[in-house]
Amino acid sequence: MIKVDFTNVMVDSIGQRGLKSSDYELINYTLAFRKISSRSYAELGFLDLWKQDLSEIKRLGKYASGFDNMIILGIGGSALGPRAIMEALKPFHNFKAKPKVFIYDNVDPLTLSEILDLVDLKNTIINVITKSGSTAETMASFMILWQSLKDKGLDITKHVIATTDTQKGDLRKIVNDYKLMSLEVPSNVGGRFSVLCAVGLLLAETIGIDSTELLKGVSDIDAICLNDNISTNPALRFALTCYLLHTIKGINMTILFPYSDQLRRFSEWFCQLWAESLGKEGRGLTPYPSVGTTDQHSQLQLWMEGPADKLVVFIAIDDYGRDITIPSIECKFNDFANQSYLSGHKLSNLIKVEQEASEIALTKNSRPNITIKIPKIDAYHFGQLFSFFELCTAYTGILLNINPFDQPGVEEGKNLTYGMMGKKGYDAKRQEFEEYRKMKRLII
Amino acid sequence: MIKVDFTNVMVDSIGQRGLKSSDYELINYTLAFRKISSRSYAELGFLDLWKQDLSEIKRLGKYASGFDNMIILGIGGSALGPRAIMEALKPFHNFKAKPKVFIYDNVDPLTLSEILDLVDLKNTIINVITKSGSTAETMASFMILWQSLKDKGLDITKHVIATTDTQKGDLRKIVNDYKLMSLEVPSNVGGRFSVLCAVGLLLAETIGIDSTELLKGVSDIDAICLNDNISTNPALRFALTCYLLHTIKGINMTILFPYSDQLRRFSEWFCQLWAESLGKEGRGLTPYPSVGTTDQHSQLQLWMEGPADKLVVFIAIDDYGRDITIPSIECKFNDFANQSYLSGHKLSNLIKVEQEASEIALTKNSRPNITIKIPKIDAYHFGQLFSFFELCTAYTGILLNINPFDQPGVEEGKNLTYGMMGKKGYDAKRQEFEEYRKMKRLII
Repeated sequence: MIKVDFTNVMVDSIGQRGLKSSDYELINYTLAFRKISSRSYAELGFLDLWKQDLSEIKRLGKYASGFDNMIILGIGGSALGPRAIMEALKPFHNFKAKPKVFIYDNVDPLTLSEILDLVDLKNTIINVITKSGSTAETMASFMILWQSLKDKGLDITKHVIATTDTQKGDLRKIVNDYKLMSLEVPSNVGGRFSVLCAVGLLLAETIGIDSTELLKGVSDIDAICLNDNISTNPALRFALTCYLLHTIKGINMTILFPYSDQLRRFSEWFCQLWAESLGKEGRGLTPYPSVGTTDQHSQLQLWMEGPADKLVVFIAIDDYGRDITIPSIECKFNDFANQSYLSGHKLSNLIKVEQEASEIALTKNSRPNITIKIPKIDAYHFGQLFSFFELCTAYTGILLNINPFDQPGVEEGKNLTYGMMGKKGYDAKRQEFEEYRKMKRLII
Repeated sequence: MIKVDFTNVMVDSIGQRGLKSSDYELINYTLAFRKISSRSYAELGFLDLWKQDLSEIKRLGKYASGFDNMIILGIGGSALGPRAIMEALKPFHNFKAKPKVFIYDNVDPLTLSEILDLVDLKNTIINVITKSGSTAETMASFMILWQSLKDKGLDITKHVIATTDTQKGDLRKIVNDYKLMSLEVPSNVGGRFSVLCAVGLLLAETIGIDSTELLKGVSDIDAICLNDNISTNPALRFALTCYLLHTIKGINMTILFPYSDQLRRFSEWFCQLWAESLGKEGRGLTPYPSVGTTDQHSQLQLWMEGPADKLVVFIAIDDYGRDITIPSIECKFNDFANQSYLSGHKLSNLIKVEQEASEIALTKNSRPNITIKIPKIDAYHFGQLFSFFELCTAYTGILLNINPFDQPGVEEGKNLTYGMMGKKGYDAKRQEFEEYRKMKRLII
């Protein structure tokens, strides 16, 4: 089971910048818990994903695994979730196994051109993922792929799996009319909370990750994180800690700092979840996607000596699965003498020591930090990580008194794009756009 | 030439949160310029890289290009620079051409194990990069590779190119004693400012990028950015803008938001440069590595409606090099009717419109933003981008009255690691580490 070490947010550890036990009693966190447990938001459906029926996902995953290439079309949670799963549980997958997986989460013309050069569509399965069924970026690339399949005389019903809302939306209508293979995003699961439904699990099954294990992790961590006891519920305590550090101590950034290359993309998944859920009404905690030890040589300077506005959340791995011993180099010039202190240590020892050293250094500088300890990065524990952070996010949003499940701030940009692309009903936005282009600019 | 649009940081554009022209006159920016032009920091050597002799880099690049695999060992600037170049100028390189490039910038044992599984060392060139010649992470992996080469009976002098300080350090000594192939990091160029010396250019030449073109871009942008006229010098104006927004308007985060997958890794390179240079003495601007359109579905909500503490720096691309037209889908059910507004547009048009739409939306919400316009992502213009941001960073640091070239905050973590790994002279740090481990913890 993952464990969370809260020592270094407390006053005993980091002094004045830390929290007192009594601070935690200032907040009615039972209320926050009840809002979750009573399902007072429609979007809490992610809490039920652990008990979903996986048979269709497994069946289509097996089908997809027979192809040479898989192209995933999706953006936001529809891409970040699958990518996090692949990078964590099948590192270097594309160098080692089939189908090669290309996740296209943009409308960059160069990227799609390159992908289309690399794959033979005859041997390619396309998984188009959009909950709403009308996401502009995803549908644009889907239309391109649809036409490309047609142009090559390939059968859409054999090359496309659509992952979309159970009943609503344009993509679901297309699925029904053309009898496409499809999987469901439950209507009560938001995009950024959707990794553990078909959105992430189809790719998992396709490349040989057991989604049953992922969900077992989810159900086990949820059993611990769905109660209002902050001495035993790490997710609620995490949320409260973020809330208190923010409101009392001015901490407004949350750095996710896993000491594993495999979790780099998980950091990015977290950043969407955290930013889009919590950044609204002038409030919010800004995330930062990091990875150790790498960012010790990039960001650590800023976290140590820059503004005291950050909470660093380490993820420490116990068992890396594989290991290498740093050798003792025997050579006539004795040139490695200054490096001999490394000899005989395992790389896993070095990386673990560096994680702890960063923890100590930050603590000595009164910089609050939390360490999540994960026994190993396998499907079971990775499922726990996902659900843990989803719950942390929901709890934190409720404590901040904002709705963690909407994203009203992205509408304006969408509407302006609709206007310029000529969508019906958006003429006023087009006009606004054109006015903007006429403005005098300060360009040098 | 890259151009920078400063319209949307001004009061005319974003209202009260914007700057007035007169604000710029409050600051003695000529002084900042003089500190650069008079070379008052030893580390300003990066300004001379445009005139370096490239012949040895080109020669060794040609040699390296004959291998099937290249492993780069380096961390921080030694990895971020080369990776940014490869991803920007040779996207999907590892899917298309040799040598396959693996950049190992960690001590994660799983990653190195996987890389060693994937390559045959017989056909592999190793580029070990550390300016100091003693970076623990880099030397640990170098020792492993050294021994692996020996174990396989391979000749170190044929499989290793060392990139390190011209004269100083353990790695330079090893180079001299063993007559290894080597390239130089000039002693007056710091790690995070080193991309345009052999650190980045060897990889460039190895995979077919003309480093002469990169440097031509550098010299052309420098000609514009090395003067004290803020009406014509975009780098100095950028720095002043960051400084003024920070000190007058409370903007403490800098988001780099290029609308191109190719620049994702460039964003990460920027984040090291910005964070490590500017984050000290309790001050600093926190960077965020982003990419558009992707992060419209991840971070934009927070930037639009979260705390008004961010400057968004767009990078807009004029020519994407390749393009695809979104087709009109003819089908019996007319199911794509709601998407027909996309038909006939080029993907490049969609991504450009989305960039501008985000710019307008942020501006309407009084969120300051700058747009850097780059004609296309080729070696010439990419060289400009690198040098532009290096100069911006130097100017900003000087305006903030901090030394942008040191990183004192990372020493403590290093020393603690030395202690635990048993390096001579660090016993006190080991003791401190062990004391820390004995402390009572709050783990749930």
